[in-house]
Amino acid sequence: MLYALGVNFFFMNTENLLVEYFSQYMSLTEEEIKLIKKEDIIREYKKDHILLEEGQIAKVCFLVLKGCVKRYYLEDGEERIMEFYTENDPIAPVSYVNQEPSKYYLSCVEPCIISTGNEESTQRFIQNFPQFVPMFIKIGDSLSVKKQMSFDDFKNLSPEDRYQKLVATRPDLIHRVPQYMIASYLGIKPESLSRIRKRLSTK
Amino acid sequence: MLYALGVNFFFMNTENLLVEYFSQYMSLTEEEIKLIKKEDIIREYKKDHILLEEGQIAKVCFLVLKGCVKRYYLEDGEERIMEFYTENDPIAPVSYVNQEPSKYYLSCVEPCIISTGNEESTQRFIQNFPQFVPMFIKIGDSLSVKKQMSFDDFKNLSPEDRYQKLVATRPDLIHRVPQYMIASYLGIKPESLSRIRKRLSTK
Repeated sequence: MLYALGVNFFFMNTENLLVEYFSQYMSLTEEEIKLIKKEDIIREYKKDHILLEEGQIAKVCFLVLKGCVKRYYLEDGEERIMEFYTENDPIAPVSYVNQEPSKYYLSCVEPCIISTGNEESTQRFIQNFPQFVPMFIKIGDSLSVKKQMSFDDFKNLSPEDRYQKLVATRPDLIHRVPQYMIASYLGIKPESLSRIRKRLSTK
Repeated sequence: MLYALGVNFFFMNTENLLVEYFSQYMSLTEEEIKLIKKEDIIREYKKDHILLEEGQIAKVCFLVLKGCVKRYYLEDGEERIMEFYTENDPIAPVSYVNQEPSKYYLSCVEPCIISTGNEESTQRFIQNFPQFVPMFIKIGDSLSVKKQMSFDDFKNLSPEDRYQKLVATRPDLIHRVPQYMIASYLGIKPESLSRIRKRLSTK
């Protein structure tokens, strides 16, 4: 009994995560909240679950509601991490958009709660609720702007400055993700990151 | 008379550029073509015209229909070029999306024909023509994917490989844009680019 209650309570929570996500961008009516909850698109994944692997064609896009996902290439058995996606970050794999075999992997760094979508579900959503469209455009814009700023920073900053910027803008990542993954993400060797951290701690 | 004809002919062409742009993504009815042509949103700019400068809050987004626009930071009087936008590339400045003073410049490397838009015009467009929405989402997706691939390449490739990739994927840029701008865009010194080109030409 308690267990069943727990499950219900848990699912109520996962649905609410998606409602909370949309509520950031617009206020929702009761009917809209019901619609979101009706869509059976939320899944839980264990740590290390692979959402997409090299060579596979992605069938869906993702929205991280809880947890952390890494995007990486495997080169001679070594991970080259390009991105960490955490709460409220959408992931549209190149493989999904171009319908071609993926060149990279997506896997869960932590246990995750993730919502999935595809063209069909998006179309249906838009047809039923055209009032969501400005929100979709807003989300797309802020995502694109966020990416542009990270790219600019990567080009313009030294590895040390990149690390400091990461600590300032995504402090949670530093604690959630092992140091060797942070190093890979910053495009430096783990030894270099250790040196940088040492230097900064004695400043 | 000839001049007037010329002007008419020219304007017919600029409108058609926007129709052509939309036609890449969906087939347009006569009515839709008329609507696009009616919107007075296409402007011509001379070479070196500054579309956005540091400190200014962007009032519009851009779509390059013809020409080439560079996006750059000015640091101690030196340009650090982040991006070149050419035919069919949309530009959504960070400053526009976040409504904050811009940290970078946008200026025309060539004479340009550019369409502008803002939230209001987009909303009006969507309300009148909801059938355009899937296209907007598609454009957003392919843009986001293109950016992701450039960022990955910048992280993963050596300067020489970056240059070769640029030659392979955007061969027109090499001829349209002065070498020192290409070097800045690749994140290297003009001398290094000269060395790379020399090395490649003797291979």
